[in-house]
Amino acid sequence: MPALDVAGEFETIERLLRPLAHPEWGRGLADDVAVLPSRPGYDLVLTKDAIVEGVHFLPDDPLDTVAKKLLRVNLSDLAAKGAEPFGYLLACFWSERCGWPEREAFAAGLAEDQAKFGVHLLGGDTVRTSGPASFSLTAMGWAPTGATVSRAGAQVGDLVFVTGVIGDGLLGLKAARGELSLEPERLQALMDHYRTPTPRVDFADVIRNFATASVDVSDGLPADLGHVVRASNVGLALNLNVLPLSAAAQAWFDDRVDPQLSLEDLASGGDDYEIAFTAHPRHEETLRREAERRLLRLTKVGEVTSGSGLTVVYDGQPIQMARSGWTHG
Amino acid sequence: MPALDVAGEFETIERLLRPLAHPEWGRGLADDVAVLPSRPGYDLVLTKDAIVEGVHFLPDDPLDTVAKKLLRVNLSDLAAKGAEPFGYLLACFWSERCGWPEREAFAAGLAEDQAKFGVHLLGGDTVRTSGPASFSLTAMGWAPTGATVSRAGAQVGDLVFVTGVIGDGLLGLKAARGELSLEPERLQALMDHYRTPTPRVDFADVIRNFATASVDVSDGLPADLGHVVRASNVGLALNLNVLPLSAAAQAWFDDRVDPQLSLEDLASGGDDYEIAFTAHPRHEETLRREAERRLLRLTKVGEVTSGSGLTVVYDGQPIQMARSGWTHG
Repeated sequence: MPALDVAGEFETIERLLRPLAHPEWGRGLADDVAVLPSRPGYDLVLTKDAIVEGVHFLPDDPLDTVAKKLLRVNLSDLAAKGAEPFGYLLACFWSERCGWPEREAFAAGLAEDQAKFGVHLLGGDTVRTSGPASFSLTAMGWAPTGATVSRAGAQVGDLVFVTGVIGDGLLGLKAARGELSLEPERLQALMDHYRTPTPRVDFADVIRNFATASVDVSDGLPADLGHVVRASNVGLALNLNVLPLSAAAQAWFDDRVDPQLSLEDLASGGDDYEIAFTAHPRHEETLRREAERRLLRLTKVGEVTSGSGLTVVYDGQPIQMARSGWTHG
Repeated sequence: MPALDVAGEFETIERLLRPLAHPEWGRGLADDVAVLPSRPGYDLVLTKDAIVEGVHFLPDDPLDTVAKKLLRVNLSDLAAKGAEPFGYLLACFWSERCGWPEREAFAAGLAEDQAKFGVHLLGGDTVRTSGPASFSLTAMGWAPTGATVSRAGAQVGDLVFVTGVIGDGLLGLKAARGELSLEPERLQALMDHYRTPTPRVDFADVIRNFATASVDVSDGLPADLGHVVRASNVGLALNLNVLPLSAAAQAWFDDRVDPQLSLEDLASGGDDYEIAFTAHPRHEETLRREAERRLLRLTKVGEVTSGSGLTVVYDGQPIQMARSGWTHG
């Protein structure tokens, strides 16, 4: 159905999105399609996420950070599979609150992250909605033929690792909602993590070379490891006591009265965008060295066992968690 | 931000979308990413459209036809560029009206069109929105390296052709809104065209081999030819008198008092999803033969001239049109 007054859409494409286009493959966003040359020896790896204001981001989240987070959660998926990102397509459903300054902020966020992560816009669509602002992004990367890491390759005896820290996604959301009392710089660090998580793009090659199974931590560590367990048809023991926490999360944790429940909450909060993966024990030293070279924390949080299902361990005992992870709607 | 009650999303993926997945490249929609093998000798051609209830489709359009139209408008873009479609990624923003029966209908529409057009689902995301139902689709096709047809190759002296008929998109929308009085079977034919236009997928190879510039007719024939004119830096004369009309459109047209204005409306209504293209006159006979073999109407509607800009001609005279085409918001 045609809409009459859409000067804003034309301007948005011309002035805000066109400067982001891939210099060659995006055809200046002026030709209905993007055209990618074949890259023999490589597979094309694709992922797509959709986000809605009020569900996946807060109505008062600045739109530059909304754009960055949308791109980053997709780059996180690619990194966890061992793929190197190069481009994306974007659909914007602008709500009434998305005036020109908001659209400029959105594009500025993309421009910054394009430079940071070496990706370009390849195409997309921009429309208006009477509902909440929504966005969908299809991200693309390359991986050498057959090298993309799945959820399904974990072997009994493999170790389980996680990059970075877990729990800042949950605490960052609480901080952004004004639900935490911590020192201002701690709150800011947590909100920054929530709004602009760091996808482990520079660890993708290590994942590709050493991980037997891998997943990014978006639903919550137990839930995401649960995906690996089911796809690989193995058991897995996750040790809550060694959950890697940021300084801010540690400060929050130190004030809790129930450490076990607090660790469960941090583990299962999701929105962490770290990589959880399994690897043979003989690679442990190499993995630690590669992580250190990238100034990236790497924590051994468990091991792959025979049997089936995820076992969460606290103080050496298997526990039942109240919930295994959020599911994003 | 996590949402708690999303059993519907899990079920939607498991029971409705997974059966649509590409048997190999889609990884059963169970691995965060799709993985496409390289196809040496071919470019990957990508396009993306976003649609919103109340803007691009009517609130009472059945969801199986909404799904089909979403897929088809993207396949139309690929066909106009000479690319052969094979797959797509999909983002669904389900509104409150999208219960299980509506989601089933949506998936059933996709299943039918997957079989019809030889494409498979490769991945995507499904979320809920408090706003109008919205969808975004990224379609993918192959074209031999360098063979993708752009808007920019029209040469002075080329002829201008259009496939099928023009104007049924506009009249179909009017019919669906109850704004037309015609015989019931005419109304149905127009509504069918509006809800499930036929992308000219089986003409893509002809376009690839003979078109110098090409575009699909979505904004309206003058507006879309205007894209070609600007990209190719040429002039173009469009003869309104030969506009190809369906039997239903002809019946509507015969009742009008102002034939010129009526043709302008039909030409500029958009939503036709035919292919408008330019080709050297020496290929005219071949083009007609290839169209005939496919039982496809092909009409010469103008020619490429020196100068710049689109000239619309009626009864041998250049005219000023009140509007050159809708722009989709």
